[in-house]
Amino acid sequence: MKAIIVKQPGGPEVLQIVDIPTPVPGDGDLLVRVQAGAVNRTDILARKGATSDFKKETARLGVEIAGIVEQVGNQVATWKPGNKVMGLVSGGYAEYAIIPANRAMPIPEPLGFVEAAAIPEVFLTAYQTLFWIGKLKENETVLIHAGASGVGTAAIQLAKKVAKATVIVTAGSAEKLAFCKELGADYAINYKERSFEEEVERLTNGQGVHLILDFIGASYWKRNIQSASMDGRIVLIGILGGRETEPIDLMVLMGKRLQVTGTLLTPRSDEYKAELSQEFAQKILPLFTTGEIKPIIDRVYPLEEMSLAHIRMEENQNIGKLVFGISE
Amino acid sequence: MKAIIVKQPGGPEVLQIVDIPTPVPGDGDLLVRVQAGAVNRTDILARKGATSDFKKETARLGVEIAGIVEQVGNQVATWKPGNKVMGLVSGGYAEYAIIPANRAMPIPEPLGFVEAAAIPEVFLTAYQTLFWIGKLKENETVLIHAGASGVGTAAIQLAKKVAKATVIVTAGSAEKLAFCKELGADYAINYKERSFEEEVERLTNGQGVHLILDFIGASYWKRNIQSASMDGRIVLIGILGGRETEPIDLMVLMGKRLQVTGTLLTPRSDEYKAELSQEFAQKILPLFTTGEIKPIIDRVYPLEEMSLAHIRMEENQNIGKLVFGISE
Repeated sequence: MKAIIVKQPGGPEVLQIVDIPTPVPGDGDLLVRVQAGAVNRTDILARKGATSDFKKETARLGVEIAGIVEQVGNQVATWKPGNKVMGLVSGGYAEYAIIPANRAMPIPEPLGFVEAAAIPEVFLTAYQTLFWIGKLKENETVLIHAGASGVGTAAIQLAKKVAKATVIVTAGSAEKLAFCKELGADYAINYKERSFEEEVERLTNGQGVHLILDFIGASYWKRNIQSASMDGRIVLIGILGGRETEPIDLMVLMGKRLQVTGTLLTPRSDEYKAELSQEFAQKILPLFTTGEIKPIIDRVYPLEEMSLAHIRMEENQNIGKLVFGISE
Repeated sequence: MKAIIVKQPGGPEVLQIVDIPTPVPGDGDLLVRVQAGAVNRTDILARKGATSDFKKETARLGVEIAGIVEQVGNQVATWKPGNKVMGLVSGGYAEYAIIPANRAMPIPEPLGFVEAAAIPEVFLTAYQTLFWIGKLKENETVLIHAGASGVGTAAIQLAKKVAKATVIVTAGSAEKLAFCKELGADYAINYKERSFEEEVERLTNGQGVHLILDFIGASYWKRNIQSASMDGRIVLIGILGGRETEPIDLMVLMGKRLQVTGTLLTPRSDEYKAELSQEFAQKILPLFTTGEIKPIIDRVYPLEEMSLAHIRMEENQNIGKLVFGISE
């Protein structure tokens, strides 16, 4: 089968399509013929050699796919060949991928493969960070940074539809701000033009927000602390703005009784991913069928042009997901 | 009634006994004739003017008492005059104190007032931080700093008896270490002689601890992060070692998926304190009656010598609680 590999860490040019053996499903696994997959920042980190994957001689990339079950391993009762599935995988930039059966999700009607491929990573991350870690409750206020990103566009929709939250987002262009509002954001702040912490203070009458989803890290740390309410929660899922913070005043952390949680989805255990996928499938997938929630797709590329997708994500040009499709 | 007040922030010498009117219980309140109370670090902060109490012209101190119900307000069905109660209050350094009825706890047989006064603040704090915030699960490993302090001695016992946890403590003298082990600590580290983070690494075979209760703050921050396991939780309830941390590496926070929560009990809402007290009374007070858990008392002072108790706490000489008793 065709698959993308990286032999040496580097820029988008190191993505190489090669022929490698089609994998064989083990006990409890499905072999899926990939119809579409999507690009994530974790792929870019892996490409640059910044993740532990580079202990291997060559790295495979790709953490989510949608496709058709080709073959089922032993001890799989819930799926059969021909089923349309989506979910979290390893080595998803390929014509075939293995997915543990207990983590595969059905593709909700009436979505196609390209739309389905835009769901798993960002919606599971948004669901996990908003509800499992962030404990977002009905009618609370949430600040979502990078509102037009893949996770951002998923989080806006989930926070509105599931928790009826008041949603404040930050983004860096008028087009992105407008799009976030279309998706349901109540307030959208252009971080290039205004200080988000002052806007948050004004919009919340000095109360701050109950929950912050942050992908920026160091450069936003103090401003996030300032923007959080009493008993506020900050979930850190990215460090696009650097990893080393300024010194932190722990008195403020205690005085406001803040909770700061760092998290990543990709390195978590198979059991965790299965549990998260199953809960998400049960509670949220019906909202895709009714159209209340939708996958947000920026552009679709053929597998051969994956480097262009990486460039676009690294330049923060995308609104929503960058998807690749595999033609027959 | 006699009560201790502070007219100007300062050292232990500013504690003054004066005569003030006995308070009148409002709806839902109890008036309690205080038989004993205890000293907490929050009292010292208040005495120094470091808490918001100094917006008032004079400050009252004391956050926990044990005594006899003297009078009940309207809408109190659960208590009557003569009942022996203990719990969290404001202005507890006095002959009488008001306590909301829904937060009062019965004094467990066979404890006396002095023992009872040593329970509320530290055991509720330990219970809240270990279980509500720290989510300590059975057979996990917990690191408790300042193991011989009031909260420390409570936390050691609760972690062992309720969660069968492996308990590692730090303390600063051989006497304190021995006492922590008597209470059930599995390992006790003298932080003046050894680097606790290296000891934790050795004791946990490099896995780290699932939960850390920290009262030290800035000077322990990096070493706590280093000592935490994957998915570890750090609960910060004091900053005896300073409030300003070094710069923090957020990549480690994400890589280990750590959760850091700052918390304080005294400023929390009446509802929170009531809910915590009720759950604690139901689940934990029976363990005092059977003797499985015991209040740890360092010394008992008359109200008139409260300044000595403050000095002893500020010098970190105490093992367990400093209690004051009020004679008839």
